[in-house]
Order: sequence, then C-alpha cells, then structure tokens
Amino acid sequence: MRALIVGPQGLHLDEAHPVPEPGPDEALVRVRLAGICNTDLEIARGYMGFRGVPGHEFVGEVDGRRVAGEINAACGACSWCARGLGRHCPNRTVLGILGRSGAFAEYLALPRRNLHPLPDSLDDEVAVFVEPTAAAFEVLEQVPLHLEDRVALLGDGKLALLIAQVLRGRCRLKVFGKHPEKLTILREVETTIERPKGQFDVVVEATGSERGFQQALDLVRPRGTLVLKSTVAAGAQLNLAPVVVNEVTVVGSRCGPFGPAIEALASGAVDPRPLISATYPLERGLQAFQRAAAPGVLKVLLRP
Amino acid sequence: MRALIVGPQGLHLDEAHPVPEPGPDEALVRVRLAGICNTDLEIARGYMGFRGVPGHEFVGEVDGRRVAGEINAACGACSWCARGLGRHCPNRTVLGILGRSGAFAEYLALPRRNLHPLPDSLDDEVAVFVEPTAAAFEVLEQVPLHLEDRVALLGDGKLALLIAQVLRGRCRLKVFGKHPEKLTILREVETTIERPKGQFDVVVEATGSERGFQQALDLVRPRGTLVLKSTVAAGAQLNLAPVVVNEVTVVGSRCGPFGPAIEALASGAVDPRPLISATYPLERGLQAFQRAAAPGVLKVLLRP
Repeated sequence: MRALIVGPQGLHLDEAHPVPEPGPDEALVRVRLAGICNTDLEIARGYMGFRGVPGHEFVGEVDGRRVAGEINAACGACSWCARGLGRHCPNRTVLGILGRSGAFAEYLALPRRNLHPLPDSLDDEVAVFVEPTAAAFEVLEQVPLHLEDRVALLGDGKLALLIAQVLRGRCRLKVFGKHPEKLTILREVETTIERPKGQFDVVVEATGSERGFQQALDLVRPRGTLVLKSTVAAGAQLNLAPVVVNEVTVVGSRCGPFGPAIEALASGAVDPRPLISATYPLERGLQAFQRAAAPGVLKVLLRP
Repeated sequence: MRALIVGPQGLHLDEAHPVPEPGPDEALVRVRLAGICNTDLEIARGYMGFRGVPGHEFVGEVDGRRVAGEINAACGACSWCARGLGRHCPNRTVLGILGRSGAFAEYLALPRRNLHPLPDSLDDEVAVFVEPTAAAFEVLEQVPLHLEDRVALLGDGKLALLIAQVLRGRCRLKVFGKHPEKLTILREVETTIERPKGQFDVVVEATGSERGFQQALDLVRPRGTLVLKSTVAAGAQLNLAPVVVNEVTVVGSRCGPFGPAIEALASGAVDPRPLISATYPLERGLQAFQRAAAPGVLKVLLRP
C-alpha cells in the first residue's frame, strides 16, 4: 500500500509499504481521510524516536461502516486498564506515535474496542477532527468549569481553536492569540491579543510554543489552575518559582474522550470546517507536511 | 535595636537599627528565638530584591505571652482576604520577605490577628518551628491523602524532614534523600536513596535543588500529583513534556495553617529538635548564616 514513512532521514513516501496485519481483536481499517497534527510535524523531525507510518487523526471504514479510532491501544490486563485509564496503560502502543503504524497510509490496524462508529450526518471532513476534539474535551474532564469561572485560552492554532469551541458557553472565556485572522474564526467568543496579569481562574495553554507556559503562568491568579496542552516545552528555560509562591495547580492534558467529541461535532456545537487549510492526496504527503508547517496554516488533510 | 540587615552589599549587622513602629491593629513583638530558612539564604543573595531585616521563623513575646506569627500581613479588605486566603492577598506584606522588617532583630511588628498564642509546654526551641511545620501541613491542606496512597518525599533537608513527620502515618510514605545521616532522624519511616520510576501516587518535591523537579517527575505515576515546595528552580532547563503526556498534576505549595502545626508540635507528633544544628546569638548572625549554608547543616537558630 501507499504510505508516508518516518525513517532515519525524515519523512518519505513508500509506494509499496506492507499492509499492517491486524492482531487478535483488531480490525483492518481503510483510511478515508487523515489530519496532520503538530505532533506529526514533531515526529517527522525525530520526536519520540518514532520510525514507521505516522498519523493518528483519521476517519476510516471497516466492514462498510465509517469509524473514528482512539489512538492508545492498551493491554487490557493491567491495573490502569482495569480502572478505565487505558490511555495511560504502560504497555500501550499509540497509533503513529509509539510502536504502531499510523494513519498516513491506505490502511491501519487498531483494536476493535478502540473504534467508534460515526453517524451518517458527520461528513469525513468533520469526522477527521474527532481525535483532536476529544483532546479538547479532556480539559473539561480534568478541570470542572463553572459558568462564572474566568478562563483564558492561550493560543490560536488548530487545537486551541477547537478547545475554544468546546469551552464556549461553559465559562467566561477569553482567547489570547496573535493572529487576528485566526481569531475571527471564533464567533461569540471574546478574543484579544493583550494579556492582563494574574486575573484568570483557569488558563489553558495551547500555544504549541516554548514561551506558552510562562505566558500562561502570568495570566493565572494565585491558587488558579493552568492546563498544559503543549508538549514542545522540552528543555526550555523555565522559572517555576511563581507556581510555588502563588500555589498554582498545573494540569498536564493529553488525549480525551471520544463520545462527547462525536456528539459535539454531530450537533454542530463544534464546527471544525473553518480550520481546514488544505486537502492533499496521500501521494503528495511531503508537500502537505511542508504546507502544514508554514506560518498561518491550520489543518492540512491527507486523502489516501 | 540590634538587627541583621540585607543591603546592596548583602548581609550585615546593625547595632542601632530603629525599632519597627507597629501600625494600627499591629503588635510590637520581642523576638525570643528565630530560625534561618533556605529562603533567608536566598534573600541574603538578592532573591525577591528584599532590603531590610530578613527572617520569618520566630517565637516571640507580646504583653508577657509567647506567640508564633503568620508571616503574610494581608490587607483584610480585598476579595482574597474575604475568602480567607490572606496568604495570597495581592496587597500583602510578608515578614522579612516583602515590604516588612523581619525576625532577625530584637523586635518585629505584625498584625495582632497574625499572632498565635503558644501553650506553655512548647519550648522556644520547638515553637520556633511552627512556621515551617505549617508549611509542611500545607501539603495536606492541598492534597488529601489516603492511607493506601503511595507517597514519595524527595529531599532530606530541614523542610523535607518536617514534611516527613507530618505525612508519617497518613499514607504509605517513602523518603528519598542523599544524606544517610539526615535520614536516620526519621524513625518509623521508610527511607532510601534509590529511585524507582513512575510508581508513586503523590510525590512531594522538597529538595531545594534545581534538579528536584525533574527527579520528582520521574517518580510520579501517570495521572499522579507532584507537590512542588522548592522555589529555587528559577531559570532551570526543564522538560514539561512528561507533565502533558502523563497528565501529571503539579501543585505549588507555600505557607500553611498554624493551628495544626502548633498542635502537632505540642503533642510531639512532629519533633523538630533533632533538626537543630546550632544556635547563635544575634550578634554572630553572619557566622550563623555561613553555618546554615554549609553542607550537611540543618536548622540554625538565632537568639537576640
């Protein structure tokens, strides 16, 4: 099959990659559409030391049914799995990220229990956003929000714009970005590029930038909560003293629940269509990656 | 009066420093005994840009009664104070740390509501530990612990050894230090110098070292809680990606409640006496600071 591959020299296209062989209780999924995430850009540059087919946002087809798929393939036997936290199973593989071939290919394999059937009303172009929308819902899962809470969202990239739509209407939300053209996508949300200090009960950091953490720390009030979504802060020069002095709670946040994400996309509460910058055929995957990394570009999709 | 002073050239002794003038609702406290904390060592080196008399751990006397004193002097009028969180009042002064003369002097001034009378049974040498013991109790205030929780305490300095005594018996505690002679102070607590990875529900970081945060992050399990006590991580090279990937909650922790601290010291549940390395008269304060900064030394006390 045709697939994009991360090798020692970075990303390349393989026209004759072996089709993955599904294990017991796994399904072979035909990929209909896949999305490029910032993590994929990092992985193509060597993050996680991943080798093989990247890609973890997709809508696919099994036995004639369209499905979305949770990316963490858990062992099902450990204490984490027993507690329903397979997303943290220490024996897990992760689609296109850790020990498992990903979605930038004609086919992928996932455990059947990872697959969620999709309503017919959900177009592929919307359904391909189920995984990142679930990651946005993880914020709500971890930090219960009240209508009167002052919440700052830092960032205006593709994940931030999904989080904004998930949080909208559930709190007093303000979005801090630096690209006015991206912020206009958010209707009915207060957006701004100026940042007041120490005013917010909750700050969600989704900048994807090394500076995001310190900026978020400036925004949060004493005893407030900072939800950290960006993984790129690796090795940055950071000052944690304000976390201690102001007794801030920092909550790391990764993958989230698929159920609420599918519902929100089906109802239109979250509309990801304005986030689509371009769609490329899989054979032009290298150009798609270049485009996805360019400034001002939001979601780039790949169609096998 | 005699006082230690932090000036532009660092710490010096002033034999004729003006006695502080208590404001309305404030008391003039005669200092009986004071303790040198790592924060004082940092302040003498320029931390917080503080100028004046440092020192915030003390036992003193007002109108013939012995008292301990909370160090945050709050405005009493803002929304923080209204919520009982004067420790985070944005208008506060902090004894010997921010805008208020401290305890390394013959007298200090504090609001009367900050003072806690001490039981006669509590010797000065024990009572001088009320403030750091309260800081240790803050961990319990912020993170409810259960008997079955696996808790790691990282550090064997003076604050860590108080925290160990506060947590002892409330959870499955393991203390990770690097000085066997300090760890022997802790009876009935499992201590070790080897560090297993990702095993602990809660990790309390009290190393006072730049490397403590990363070490604590290695110990905590996915979805676990890391309580951060050290403020010295300023500007360190840190990798926050594991916080996100493992969805760790980091809780900054500073000053704590005096009531439980006084009770625990009075009952003997916390015994700080083995932590006292030396007591100096105030006029030998510079030597006391040198001693306090020396390796292997725990608490150094100053007697005016």
